[in-house]
Amino acid sequence: MTKNDVKELQALRQAKGRKEAGIFAVEGNKLVEELLSSDFRINNIFATGQWVEKNPVMAKKVADYEIVTSKQMEQISNFVTPPGIYATAMIPSFKIKPDITDRELILMLDGINDPGNLGTIIRTADWFGIRKIVVSKDTCDPWQPKVIQSTMGSIFRIQIVEAELVEFLKDVKTPVFGALMQGKNVYHTNMGNNQGVIIIGSESHGIRENVMPFVSCPINIPRAESSQTESLNASVAAGIIISEVFRKSH
Amino acid sequence: MTKNDVKELQALRQAKGRKEAGIFAVEGNKLVEELLSSDFRINNIFATGQWVEKNPVMAKKVADYEIVTSKQMEQISNFVTPPGIYATAMIPSFKIKPDITDRELILMLDGINDPGNLGTIIRTADWFGIRKIVVSKDTCDPWQPKVIQSTMGSIFRIQIVEAELVEFLKDVKTPVFGALMQGKNVYHTNMGNNQGVIIIGSESHGIRENVMPFVSCPINIPRAESSQTESLNASVAAGIIISEVFRKSH
Repeated sequence: MTKNDVKELQALRQAKGRKEAGIFAVEGNKLVEELLSSDFRINNIFATGQWVEKNPVMAKKVADYEIVTSKQMEQISNFVTPPGIYATAMIPSFKIKPDITDRELILMLDGINDPGNLGTIIRTADWFGIRKIVVSKDTCDPWQPKVIQSTMGSIFRIQIVEAELVEFLKDVKTPVFGALMQGKNVYHTNMGNNQGVIIIGSESHGIRENVMPFVSCPINIPRAESSQTESLNASVAAGIIISEVFRKSH
Repeated sequence: MTKNDVKELQALRQAKGRKEAGIFAVEGNKLVEELLSSDFRINNIFATGQWVEKNPVMAKKVADYEIVTSKQMEQISNFVTPPGIYATAMIPSFKIKPDITDRELILMLDGINDPGNLGTIIRTADWFGIRKIVVSKDTCDPWQPKVIQSTMGSIFRIQIVEAELVEFLKDVKTPVFGALMQGKNVYHTNMGNNQGVIIIGSESHGIRENVMPFVSCPINIPRAESSQTESLNASVAAGIIISEVFRKSH
């Protein structure tokens, strides 16, 4: 690994670097295993000698890796304590067309900006069988290490597409559910046709103004009367809503 | 503020320091406001001159604060960019007895170790009207800054008690629901009596072995048949289960 290689891999820490190179990094046994069994195109895999020694079975399975020094691994890793195995893969470019919502329910994220929340929402979507997520341009980058980490591998099984939400929604003919502070009680809302869109807004501002007119079915998670709290965490709210869709369609 | 004061406040960053002093720190406008309107006993409030200038209304409301320099604030704050207002309050000592579960449903956390998850679970409990949480001794400390932050103020409205789970459960006469990979479908389980205990296990190991015999009703969140993911995030799983209890009892 040359100094220049190190520099190129370090650039993947920034969204700009990932976009320019069209690749992203995946670290640790669990995630690299998930990557290997996915359809993603792998570029390179780097491992330290120490990792290979400790993980002979997985090393044999990975097979095609390049040995780097611990120092090099520290330079490229996104962890303070690098797990010892580091892969790069191509950022996929899926296409999701609005008419897909006639046949399946998709998720839309309008400005989610916490990587942990985004990763957790992707993981939840995967659990409940949602296969497509459209994200606004200001949603945090799905290919950043913290998001990848918190998806626990689900990122390799979900199609994620960045889009102008308004442009997309203009052509959607099926119900558009929006998670709002005011709306129909989600427990009593018919969402069981497995078509349409569920929109989750940003942690601080919710669904933005120019998207609101497209919400044909505002939904709300009821709160206990005794409660004085203002909101739920975005990934918990998304989880409860997706769970409700699943409950009603099964 | 003396150098010794700074040292004492810095000690609150560690669980040990908090335990010894019996106090914890709260930072930022939102959380300090929530603290002020809670029943918690406040020790001290520190603010920078810059914060007072920018927040005249809140400064007037807080009233009893001590001005510190920006440098001092940086030394005591848990943030890289300190919000400018920092309070300390007494760690409360509630008592929760097993027979409370005859009259209300409580939450029990068995080894949750991510502060974000713990905070989010406390916030969700608050939303749905659960008022008491029993945590195992190895659950991460509820009084650490990251937990406080992610509760968004709910920590001031929930009674949290650390206990030996087995000792506690021995005397519980009502249903004990446990979130497991195998169990009754949570959507079809009767949980609507508003009594008993819901146990959420740790992110990596679930409910521990010596607690398992006390789970009288194992419950499970069903997964889509097409899904290959192994688990849900612990705070999302807790959210879905608590939401189900709420849905059934309303």
